Amino acid sequence: MPVSYKDAGVDIDAGDELVDRIAPLARATRTAGVLADVGGFAGLFAVPGGYTEPVLVSGTDGVGTKLKVAFATGVHDTIGIDLVAMCVNDVLTVGARPLFFLDYFASGTPDVGVGEAVVRGVADGCKLAGAALLGGETAELPGMYAPGEYDLAGFAVGIVERSRILDGRAVRKGDALVGVASSGLHSNGYSLARRVLLDDAALALDATLPELGDPGRTLGAALLEPTRIYARAVAGLVAALGERLHALCHITGGGLPGNLPRVVPDESLGLAVELASYPRPGIFHAIAARGPVEETEMQRTFNLGVGLVAVVAEDAVPAAVAALEAAGERAWRLGAIVPAREAGPERVALRRA
Amino acid sequence: MPVSYKDAGVDIDAGDELVDRIAPLARATRTAGVLADVGGFAGLFAVPGGYTEPVLVSGTDGVGTKLKVAFATGVHDTIGIDLVAMCVNDVLTVGARPLFFLDYFASGTPDVGVGEAVVRGVADGCKLAGAALLGGETAELPGMYAPGEYDLAGFAVGIVERSRILDGRAVRKGDALVGVASSGLHSNGYSLARRVLLDDAALALDATLPELGDPGRTLGAALLEPTRIYARAVAGLVAALGERLHALCHITGGGLPGNLPRVVPDESLGLAVELASYPRPGIFHAIAARGPVEETEMQRTFNLGVGLVAVVAEDAVPAAVAALEAAGERAWRLGAIVPAREAGPERVALRRA
Repeated sequence: MPVSYKDAGVDIDAGDELVDRIAPLARATRTAGVLADVGGFAGLFAVPGGYTEPVLVSGTDGVGTKLKVAFATGVHDTIGIDLVAMCVNDVLTVGARPLFFLDYFASGTPDVGVGEAVVRGVADGCKLAGAALLGGETAELPGMYAPGEYDLAGFAVGIVERSRILDGRAVRKGDALVGVASSGLHSNGYSLARRVLLDDAALALDATLPELGDPGRTLGAALLEPTRIYARAVAGLVAALGERLHALCHITGGGLPGNLPRVVPDESLGLAVELASYPRPGIFHAIAARGPVEETEMQRTFNLGVGLVAVVAEDAVPAAVAALEAAGERAWRLGAIVPAREAGPERVALRRA
Repeated sequence: MPVSYKDAGVDIDAGDELVDRIAPLARATRTAGVLADVGGFAGLFAVPGGYTEPVLVSGTDGVGTKLKVAFATGVHDTIGIDLVAMCVNDVLTVGARPLFFLDYFASGTPDVGVGEAVVRGVADGCKLAGAALLGGETAELPGMYAPGEYDLAGFAVGIVERSRILDGRAVRKGDALVGVASSGLHSNGYSLARRVLLDDAALALDATLPELGDPGRTLGAALLEPTRIYARAVAGLVAALGERLHALCHITGGGLPGNLPRVVPDESLGLAVELASYPRPGIFHAIAARGPVEETEMQRTFNLGVGLVAVVAEDAVPAAVAALEAAGERAWRLGAIVPAREAGPERVALRRA
């Protein structure tokens, strides 16, 4: 009997159907730059006008084992928002505006319904970011992924005027740190969160926990809460503050101490964060108490409720908070830039008093 | 006992060491556009000057189950070339020049040596493409990948002058098809090739097959042969042919019949390919004979020795072949553009006579 590609485990029909279902989702994200119906092999996007020295800004990321929560709950239509957020929030940190996004979705045998839900989330994320979903790949890798599992990678491109790049060189002693609230764990630390809550404490994903505050909210919903996309927030900050915006930091893997020093290149400066300046969300208390997980490990693994930090001139704090609130975020004065010697050897002091 | 991130299966030290080893590999690919040492969260690349209406061209891809051949042979330092090739060759089809590339490398627990070898291949591919390796993500997903396995996704961005985009509208009846040799299977059809050669025929990867021609060449080496990157070839064609270059087609998943019609939007035109115009490489004979795999299935699954097809004005064939040979490729007159009715319902006729 002759052997066919389908015999080898590759279901071209399912792949084609998924591609057909994705097309209108991507079309709905089109922005002015997209050159549609050209270039069947690649996506085309016109460099926007009005820049003297346009610089492209690009980042790639995945969503880590937050995927496992999507697999376990069967809720697949928001993990794509996380994917866009993780890539776009990185791109935003230099003051850039997102232009477009591409996604890579890999599974053993594609489940058309799941794949469509995932890409619907990606498209929703692109709309929140103001980025066009310019392309994507649905990879079929028989035998490499367990049934019902998949991996996701994302890729974002933005643009910024060269003279307006936020490189942290404007940061000065006495600048303020403005914190922007996260929506929960975002997409970091899930291996630890899952180990503590689901494995060791053996909590069910449909359990409700007193620490979560909302009595009707399940643990699964709290763990799947999509990562916030700060595109509108950053556009608002850039417009409102101009040169009084000195740096932006995405609080991703490594938490506040692992990320904040990255945006302050002057090694004579440090960052003093007042952890008592905001209420820590309940999900972090749930993880810390049930592990237990020590405070230093919590700080190095999770965002602890802060998704983005802006370093701004001290007199710009009210304008920064107002711009962020106008963009739909919660924001507050989180701390200040201090001499490095006051912030310890890693240039970050997290104060709990 | 308190629980740490490391207890949860995430080895931050191994991840950090891999990132340290990757940094010099990426640095070695830097081109003039890269803004180094700025933007710790994202890569920055200045839009090159000299364009009136610059258009960005972007594509994403993986390498499919060619990965499984890398796992089985333990040879990990060329699969990254395949990754770059699959993305960049798509971008080239509109006549674009590659600018930069990003990679996503995901495994359960990172093997630093394997990860470094993979990214060394990515960097080698970037050099062949003239693209800077602008960023990347090494994702650690405990429990999602089998030990020793990993997945790879790539993202490429190129640039083209808007008025010079190859959109296939210049294709005319009587144009010639110029074939450019592939180096083997490239990165398509591996699920079928592995099923036939490794599972059903139970051949060893260190076996030598008479069909491969070279008596010292193992099956594993033949299956791992890196995908050709056609960046120099396309740059040479664009420069030599100008407006006599009408379309470019990357022969990827779906083979010649699945890809060629995509670059000829005029539905009154078809493509006639003379399969006897070149010797089919031995690896394809090995697969067809040992499956057996029927000729139509071979045609729809594999590139059959043709990695790229240029549609050119008939009088430009000698110049096209000369430009491609000067870029180090083998090229020949593969066929012609004919009326669609002469090419059958799918507008592609593959003639074996």
